[in-house]
Amino acid sequence: MKTDVQIAQEAQMKKIHEIADYLGIHEHELEPYGRYKAKVSLEVLKRLENKPNGKLILVTAINPTPAGEGKTTINVGLSMALNKIGKKTITALREPSLGPCFGIKGGAAGGGYAQVVPMDDINLHFTGDFHAITSAHNLLAALLDNHIHQGNALNIDPKRIVWKRVLDMNDRALRNIIIGLGGKADGFVRQSGFDITVASEIMAILCLSTSLSDLKERLSKMVVAYATDGKAITAGELQATGAMALLLKDAIMPNLVQTLENTPAFIHGGPFANIAHGCNSVMATTIALKLAEYVVTEAGFGADLGAEKFFDIKCRFAGLKPDAAVIVATIRALKMNGGVPKNELGFENLPGLEAGIANLERHLENVEKFGVPAVVAINKFPTDTDAEIELLREKCATKGVEVVLAEVFTKGGEGGIELAHKVVEICETKEAHYAPLYDVDGTIEEKITTVATEIYRAGRVEFTSAAKKQIDEIAALGLDKMPICMAKTQYSFSDNPGLLGAPTGFTLTVREVKVSAGAGFIVALTGDIMTMPGLPKTPAANGMDITEDGEIIGLS
Amino acid sequence: MKTDVQIAQEAQMKKIHEIADYLGIHEHELEPYGRYKAKVSLEVLKRLENKPNGKLILVTAINPTPAGEGKTTINVGLSMALNKIGKKTITALREPSLGPCFGIKGGAAGGGYAQVVPMDDINLHFTGDFHAITSAHNLLAALLDNHIHQGNALNIDPKRIVWKRVLDMNDRALRNIIIGLGGKADGFVRQSGFDITVASEIMAILCLSTSLSDLKERLSKMVVAYATDGKAITAGELQATGAMALLLKDAIMPNLVQTLENTPAFIHGGPFANIAHGCNSVMATTIALKLAEYVVTEAGFGADLGAEKFFDIKCRFAGLKPDAAVIVATIRALKMNGGVPKNELGFENLPGLEAGIANLERHLENVEKFGVPAVVAINKFPTDTDAEIELLREKCATKGVEVVLAEVFTKGGEGGIELAHKVVEICETKEAHYAPLYDVDGTIEEKITTVATEIYRAGRVEFTSAAKKQIDEIAALGLDKMPICMAKTQYSFSDNPGLLGAPTGFTLTVREVKVSAGAGFIVALTGDIMTMPGLPKTPAANGMDITEDGEIIGLS
Repeated sequence: MKTDVQIAQEAQMKKIHEIADYLGIHEHELEPYGRYKAKVSLEVLKRLENKPNGKLILVTAINPTPAGEGKTTINVGLSMALNKIGKKTITALREPSLGPCFGIKGGAAGGGYAQVVPMDDINLHFTGDFHAITSAHNLLAALLDNHIHQGNALNIDPKRIVWKRVLDMNDRALRNIIIGLGGKADGFVRQSGFDITVASEIMAILCLSTSLSDLKERLSKMVVAYATDGKAITAGELQATGAMALLLKDAIMPNLVQTLENTPAFIHGGPFANIAHGCNSVMATTIALKLAEYVVTEAGFGADLGAEKFFDIKCRFAGLKPDAAVIVATIRALKMNGGVPKNELGFENLPGLEAGIANLERHLENVEKFGVPAVVAINKFPTDTDAEIELLREKCATKGVEVVLAEVFTKGGEGGIELAHKVVEICETKEAHYAPLYDVDGTIEEKITTVATEIYRAGRVEFTSAAKKQIDEIAALGLDKMPICMAKTQYSFSDNPGLLGAPTGFTLTVREVKVSAGAGFIVALTGDIMTMPGLPKTPAANGMDITEDGEIIGLS
Repeated sequence: MKTDVQIAQEAQMKKIHEIADYLGIHEHELEPYGRYKAKVSLEVLKRLENKPNGKLILVTAINPTPAGEGKTTINVGLSMALNKIGKKTITALREPSLGPCFGIKGGAAGGGYAQVVPMDDINLHFTGDFHAITSAHNLLAALLDNHIHQGNALNIDPKRIVWKRVLDMNDRALRNIIIGLGGKADGFVRQSGFDITVASEIMAILCLSTSLSDLKERLSKMVVAYATDGKAITAGELQATGAMALLLKDAIMPNLVQTLENTPAFIHGGPFANIAHGCNSVMATTIALKLAEYVVTEAGFGADLGAEKFFDIKCRFAGLKPDAAVIVATIRALKMNGGVPKNELGFENLPGLEAGIANLERHLENVEKFGVPAVVAINKFPTDTDAEIELLREKCATKGVEVVLAEVFTKGGEGGIELAHKVVEICETKEAHYAPLYDVDGTIEEKITTVATEIYRAGRVEFTSAAKKQIDEIAALGLDKMPICMAKTQYSFSDNPGLLGAPTGFTLTVREVKVSAGAGFIVALTGDIMTMPGLPKTPAANGMDITEDGEIIGLS
């Protein structure tokens, strides 16, 4: 089989105007970026505000393993299959980050015959959204340091500055730095650091905003530091809101591209799935729902993090009502979740598979708790045996859930027809009764405990003394009545990445609690979350190139 | 009169396809970015390689003063006027940097009725070129630090790393930093810093490259550090070339926009005019010369830096043959150069003016040394008196040079008709005999001394012992046979910014000599050159905003 980049470069793309025409987007609502990318004006939403929404399908997954699940691949494949069976469908995805692209991953836009294109542009600068976020974030940082340098009228405590800088790059050397060295004109000396751009609160805000005014209000509320008297200092007080909004004026518009089979795709925003909510933008999803019968979207990591945040943060804020969920798994990854070592995944192992299915069952129960009907999609591998697939079907049937095999990686939309029919059947026969898991009016401890016990199945939650102090401070600032954004390892339901399958009774330790007042959530950290990745020994960048004819090498 | 942003937002822009059609750019050679911006494929150059070039006009200026000269305004106005008198003309300018935009300047795209539009986009992210350069530069930095972290196979001396990081932001706190703090996984501790993106050698390279292959060759030659044995370590040895080129694949294409009067404008690249050569890209200029009868371009700062580098670096590398130069001055700035204090510039002062005209005369003589005929354009202010203008005309006449008044700021192209006719007359009647000032085969000292004595009129050049050592090292590496890029204050012919007018006999001190092996020049620093600006007490960012209707406030 051809490589991803070969398949992508051979794609028969339609001009982006044709894709927009198919969706009924007017010419003045489209801002082309080259021939195959465009931004879509927020005016579409105003024009269609009285049109009923299409069906909203969430693609989520079991806990990820090194064996891989192919969540984006299934998402893209399902959207192509839905179009094939006559349902006007848009896929809504997150934008990939440049940093990991040059590290290990080499790209992120689906795989095989289920990709979004132009793959190279999407993986590189795309329409500049992440650069705009980087600029806005770093402008605020420069204004903050400059404010102190120029006299510090707001009495900012230099020891309590929480706003760092960002780059869309994997650069471990910038994690912990000292800035402001040099002479008197070179600022003041303090410790700081860089995060990767996807970790910026501005990324989360861009993805949760419902309009330019909402964006500005959220930007102004961001807490950047604390004053010597403990008062929270916001971006608004630094008079940074307008300039940041100006830098983000184009970035707020969703990006329109297409799949290999010319299915429209909105790819917009890409917040972290641990310290942020891990979903594409609200604007992309809400506009897509006005333009299509079906919108297939995704959330980062497994359903314990991704789906929970999609339901409890994104859908809550945006008033979205999801109609169905697809839980993606592979037989291989289920076996790994059941304790089978990586080098034995190619062999049939029914006991190992059965143990791993417990992980899938847990996610199925969890999705049901939000009132959303689900189907399991198996991303098929050649090593999967009939007996394994039969076992999986039986186990899921006891939960009243069907299992559908998908072969979109090798066959494109054709390989997802059965899944598409199943999704349509669910939407047409089962009524979803979506509701978030908890009420925002509870205390921070109560909300965290609800997620930990009901979704993760922890026996108890322990808050470190530092976390308790932070919770009290957040409550004292009146910022506690917001949803919780859990930052936890993606590999386990627990906070221990080695605890696979479906553990229960463990203690979940909350080490740190932070407020993202602009994004509108409280981040609970249960371990060390890496917000600035590093490059591996042999970075993917080393193998990348472009020839004089424009052939691209090394992206995948 | 209306503000710049008001005039710009009322512009009757043509769709960028119409501008491209007017120039004979084929549809497949145009990559639109929104409705009013596009990138032009380098294929145009191949298609038209046998077509004769249009006339190349350099707009340069006297030494800048706080009174302002309006070089870009005259450039834009002249191009509009040339079109008005029936000459198909393109203006070729540098892209503005985001950093100063949020600091003091608030924008840079001409002024009044002589602007390039869409002004807001040009001043903000434009087509993402600077972000691409920032990404490529910082990827190289990350690969470099990672190389050492992962075992340092190239034996890089951590004390001799010359490659810093960049941001397109005015951020004084990042000038001098310590990176790599934290634990074992967080890189190694060393001193470093950030420059502003326009100071990146990659910016200079992008602007001097003649093709993608040439870009890659230049990128691979960049010296990033020295090994423990003194050997220069290049970007090529870090296997960074291909990935950087991939990041720059779109940035290398010139950007097409238009003036307020729909004159085509190429705005591409923006290297510093001190540590780099201060001109828009070679690709933009060479493509423009194939598409138009006249190309009006510019070079940063006064003619002592800008024109000298345009002739000795850009034209030399690109094989360009400039046909005429326009030297821009204002009566006010000439008086300041003659020692008149800023608060007295509104009053007639013939002795002050006469003293200042010496500065202009010097620049006229210098341009002549390159074999290029010149005209003086006075950017007219209401306070200029007839007697002052008459005096200026007389003094220039003794040099055989005509003075033309231009009122393009208030009248657009109409205010530059006389200047346009004069430029056409020069091109049609005077033959230029362009030649660079010195041969690259001389020693570094010889080349620097030639520029210092012939252009600046220094009595002697002093090299510090540090500079002498660096010159020896560069020669030992075999990198000395390249042109010189002087980094000097823009305010004076000398290295003392207070020495206005036309000083002679001073000593020019060269403090540091660095090699930009990829760009292909040797930088001679004659003072402290600020490569990372700071924000002022009240940054322009504080007054910026965008309304829900898209009205932009605070850019100018």
